[in-house]
Amino acid sequence: MTFDFKKYIAAIPDFPEPGIIFRDVTPLMADGEAYAAATKEFVAYTKAQGGIDVVVGPESRGFIVGGPVAYELGIGFVPARKAGKLPRETVRQDYELEYGGINTLEMHADAIKPGQRVLITDDLLATGGTIEATVKLIEQLGGIVVGIAFLIELDDLHGRDKLTEYDIFSLMHY
Amino acid sequence: MTFDFKKYIAAIPDFPEPGIIFRDVTPLMADGEAYAAATKEFVAYTKAQGGIDVVVGPESRGFIVGGPVAYELGIGFVPARKAGKLPRETVRQDYELEYGGINTLEMHADAIKPGQRVLITDDLLATGGTIEATVKLIEQLGGIVVGIAFLIELDDLHGRDKLTEYDIFSLMHY
Repeated sequence: MTFDFKKYIAAIPDFPEPGIIFRDVTPLMADGEAYAAATKEFVAYTKAQGGIDVVVGPESRGFIVGGPVAYELGIGFVPARKAGKLPRETVRQDYELEYGGINTLEMHADAIKPGQRVLITDDLLATGGTIEATVKLIEQLGGIVVGIAFLIELDDLHGRDKLTEYDIFSLMHY
Repeated sequence: MTFDFKKYIAAIPDFPEPGIIFRDVTPLMADGEAYAAATKEFVAYTKAQGGIDVVVGPESRGFIVGGPVAYELGIGFVPARKAGKLPRETVRQDYELEYGGINTLEMHADAIKPGQRVLITDDLLATGGTIEATVKLIEQLGGIVVGIAFLIELDDLHGRDKLTEYDIFSLMHY
């Protein structure tokens, strides 16, 4: 029997804007059994993809999802951060926010070595803007995105359409 | 022989302000061996403290530090986040920023159950403002802070003086 992950997702109507149902993954992370089960699913997925060298997660829920995956695989974790947070030389990528406006994501210029096989992790695939920017940063540094893993994919927002060249794994769909 | 964690810390002069030496932990996190070794030290520390029920980390480097610790212990991870990020009912705590100004940290009101034994994780102890706020949030919810674990403690900033009632574990000192 598969683990019932949806039991640990809270639905919040009208957050952060009227008409939006926010899917809150914090109850899943707060439950040891669910957090471990999700991590193990991501680890199994990376193995099926032929293995990876490093996990990248965008700020900041991607950090909570990706850290244990990297740890379980005995590899490193690299954050993609909002502009101005990383202290050394960076590469930068602008992207459109889901609710309007432009944001910038950065990675340290030495964070990925050319040819490294990368898994991207995040909590949720919505319009895909953040993840598209993360992919571009990794590829700018010569990394190979072998998979992108989410706890949740919001099917109606078609974020997948921005990422057709990549393999996407989603633990839950809404 | 103990693991040479300091080898993985980058020193950046004059960031984010002139006269400050920023200690960058991202190379440690990006190295699988170092990330795993640090996680194992934190896990051993929690066991020496008599065990814990949940790990709490403040946004956002505390997430990368604490996630694998929770995973390895088979328990959950709870984020303390900047104001406005958490969608459900929260408790709030203001704190003074290291470089001036006031910030607010929040936790979901149901994130900690009364009597739960909590480890707080973060990358770095500086003036201690963020961690003091995190402690207050946990205690407001009835949690018991049994330890606070950092990768780095900046001894000259005396952050420890704000936390004299708590047990502090720091992997490195500068």
